[in-house]
Amino acid sequence: MTRRFRRRFKILIMLVIAGILVYMIHSWYLDDDPPPEENYVTTRKTLEPTLTVVIQDFDPFHNNMYNTVNYIASNFTSVKVLIITKTLPYPPMKLPKLPNVKLVVLHTDVKSILNDSRPEYHIDSNFVLFLPDGAILDDYFMNKFKHFVLKHNYMKYEAYAIPMRWTTLKCHGIVFSVKTWTLEIGGKLLTNKCGYVSGEHGVLLRTKHLYELSNPFLTPTFMSIYIQLSLIYFKVVILDDLYLLPASNVKPDAQTIWQQKQTHSQKLKALYSDLGIKLVLHENKREEWYGCHKESFRCFDTVYNDMPEFLYTGRWTPPCCLKNLRETAKHVFAILDKCKVRYWLEGGSLLGAARIGDIIPWDYDIDIGIYQEDIFKCDQLRKVVKEGFIDDEGYSWEKAIEGDFYRVQFSDTNHLHVDIFPFYPKNGIMTKNTWFKSHRQDTEFPERYLKPLSKIKFAGLSVSAPNHVRDFLEYKFGKGVIESPKYPNTEIAG
Amino acid sequence: MTRRFRRRFKILIMLVIAGILVYMIHSWYLDDDPPPEENYVTTRKTLEPTLTVVIQDFDPFHNNMYNTVNYIASNFTSVKVLIITKTLPYPPMKLPKLPNVKLVVLHTDVKSILNDSRPEYHIDSNFVLFLPDGAILDDYFMNKFKHFVLKHNYMKYEAYAIPMRWTTLKCHGIVFSVKTWTLEIGGKLLTNKCGYVSGEHGVLLRTKHLYELSNPFLTPTFMSIYIQLSLIYFKVVILDDLYLLPASNVKPDAQTIWQQKQTHSQKLKALYSDLGIKLVLHENKREEWYGCHKESFRCFDTVYNDMPEFLYTGRWTPPCCLKNLRETAKHVFAILDKCKVRYWLEGGSLLGAARIGDIIPWDYDIDIGIYQEDIFKCDQLRKVVKEGFIDDEGYSWEKAIEGDFYRVQFSDTNHLHVDIFPFYPKNGIMTKNTWFKSHRQDTEFPERYLKPLSKIKFAGLSVSAPNHVRDFLEYKFGKGVIESPKYPNTEIAG
Repeated sequence: MTRRFRRRFKILIMLVIAGILVYMIHSWYLDDDPPPEENYVTTRKTLEPTLTVVIQDFDPFHNNMYNTVNYIASNFTSVKVLIITKTLPYPPMKLPKLPNVKLVVLHTDVKSILNDSRPEYHIDSNFVLFLPDGAILDDYFMNKFKHFVLKHNYMKYEAYAIPMRWTTLKCHGIVFSVKTWTLEIGGKLLTNKCGYVSGEHGVLLRTKHLYELSNPFLTPTFMSIYIQLSLIYFKVVILDDLYLLPASNVKPDAQTIWQQKQTHSQKLKALYSDLGIKLVLHENKREEWYGCHKESFRCFDTVYNDMPEFLYTGRWTPPCCLKNLRETAKHVFAILDKCKVRYWLEGGSLLGAARIGDIIPWDYDIDIGIYQEDIFKCDQLRKVVKEGFIDDEGYSWEKAIEGDFYRVQFSDTNHLHVDIFPFYPKNGIMTKNTWFKSHRQDTEFPERYLKPLSKIKFAGLSVSAPNHVRDFLEYKFGKGVIESPKYPNTEIAG
Repeated sequence: MTRRFRRRFKILIMLVIAGILVYMIHSWYLDDDPPPEENYVTTRKTLEPTLTVVIQDFDPFHNNMYNTVNYIASNFTSVKVLIITKTLPYPPMKLPKLPNVKLVVLHTDVKSILNDSRPEYHIDSNFVLFLPDGAILDDYFMNKFKHFVLKHNYMKYEAYAIPMRWTTLKCHGIVFSVKTWTLEIGGKLLTNKCGYVSGEHGVLLRTKHLYELSNPFLTPTFMSIYIQLSLIYFKVVILDDLYLLPASNVKPDAQTIWQQKQTHSQKLKALYSDLGIKLVLHENKREEWYGCHKESFRCFDTVYNDMPEFLYTGRWTPPCCLKNLRETAKHVFAILDKCKVRYWLEGGSLLGAARIGDIIPWDYDIDIGIYQEDIFKCDQLRKVVKEGFIDDEGYSWEKAIEGDFYRVQFSDTNHLHVDIFPFYPKNGIMTKNTWFKSHRQDTEFPERYLKPLSKIKFAGLSVSAPNHVRDFLEYKFGKGVIESPKYPNTEIAG
């Protein structure tokens, strides 16, 4: 072709040869190190362990922050110290004016820019060490840390608890069942692979692992991190050859300690709310319930298409809602029993009783049928036919807006409820006035299922039910309904 | 030195020459384009305008999201469509399963990873277009958009409002005074450089400019963006050669429109709270107050070292607090006047009166002195000496815990207050039983300043004050205090 093209081609060949030459010389002369191990690191850069220290929990009034931060940041200029707070600390907190000290306020003010409130933007190290206020590092720590990382002791699926000097840490199990909103903090473990670690300490982990958590910067720091690490199957290993040092020996007074405990438990409550934890089971069998009681709103929104919103986030009915539903049901059954009103478990509630002797774990109300002619036998029912009222124990009785039935709510505020459907017999068939067309099970049925009524175990009680429960349920829902649990809307897998 | 070193040196020289050669050839043959203009772009890559469409506001029940998103994402595969919501949409929202469609949930669930909740992680274009639900783009738009950006029409400090076709947008001014917590939405502007734009439209801006906002993903989208852009001196330019198209013509019914208006105003309220806006002044002089009333808590925390927290975020006392303080003062003055109790403005309140005839804009309470011997003249004072009470108008009177004085609070809940300090004369000097040692102005003074009492303009009233106010104030605070306003703690500049 053209001369120009040939010239270009020659230059290209020359360049290729030069390139190969450069590569050969480079690998021949200059690189005496062995290539980095595969599977561990891909570039030389990550082999150099770098560290960001993060401090999130400190008392706004009695803290050691200035000294702690100053010691670490001025002694180790390659270590960045990040202080993360929800809002601007008040009373104002003095921090050393050093280039490697940074305060990140998560709910930042309107004059800042987006990244001012993003901790991850300020972390450029490959390791993050979460410290409690008052813990500092020394040269021994830094050398050990580098040694530890470089010697490949650092494993996948592990984070490291580093004790305060002279402190013995305790190793506990932790199980967060997202589905049942329940956190279980287990007994002390004898291995050194823990879920949760108690005792004063710091936590070291790879930055990239931190970002596998949904919300790595919640407080109280350690509880937040341990709960979230457990969800991605990480274990916490207690190190015995690395330790932190106390910044000073100032002991807080009794009032301060009390105040700090109050703050800690408020923060825990907020953490549980953020992570969706409603029940905490402690190792000593103690139960802590969060989030639903008579004065709170029902903890899920109006239900559309029989699919409450929690099912879409992979959760079942919150345990406190189930508990409150059981309580409401118990209250209603006691009244109906006392009045000798003939009632029976209906729909999903009967199905739950047949399956597991309890409310279906993702069900959100309780349905019962009664004989309409029995309404006159019971004060509460006679009253509610006329107008809604709140009974002596705070349960709210009302006529449903949706049709000809009655609803007993856990309270005036918390609308968890038992629905009471009045049926009447007509030529041997039980029928009623209001039907939910989208519910297959909401249908007429032969009165013989109620003659006689039987008993079934439900929510820890023995409750009135139709006879031949299996027949009755299969009549209403279809064959095999007891054996094959399904979500109301079958687009989501159970 | 060694032969090996000389060999290395020769190779180095060769490499340098080769490098220079390569550079020359490269720039000589291969690059016929002129270098990109400075100040506009630095690399070739940013010259190619790329687009992310962001949709944040939509009705959870009646929306056009599926069609809108599907149209844009399937017609323009290089455009990413980002739907940003606070929580997982419920009832669940169907979105087209396309690789360039992404839902970002800001309060994401515990099973996700950090970046799932970070919109910025999912934006890799150099332009962002915020769209209302139901607006789509066509080829004409895309061509025009590229043309617009490439032809360097895009300026610094500008964002672009793109109208829905056949819609005339209106241009308004917007001023957010962070210091006074006040948002002013001004009259229609005749220029096309606006602060706020009304009428159905989308907003286009450079991604990097979006990140100069403190919280770019708040809703209602347009109000949020316009308020925040105004803080960084951006103007919004209405484009007349670009327009959006409606996705469909389905008109919502009256109930839906009402519901949407309710939701919008709730969102606005949340936005104002997030951005720290307590007063909105509309163009028709209408005032909207947010956040403080008798039933709400005082909107700032306990004050330490006379420096309320808002001063640390560059703000003054919220306007509603000043308003409520004025109201409380007016109430107290009326009672004292009626009882003929001799009282006078004290401390910071008198200083404010002398300076501007009002409360000092960063002051947070009102101080007055009274003659102790006049307490018996007034029912309310006699009563409060014994015990606290709430008066007929809901003001809460109490004996201060801090010492021998009385406090009238705006309400039992909202603790904005007027402090009443009882003084008594002793050898021609007014003295009292409780002193605040850290306050220079809290000191004895000659009784002649009260003989006679004078009047001063304060908070729209004519209020009792010492005579020779300037002398009195300089006696208490020091020379020149009226002329040189200072924050209580002088570490922060006024």
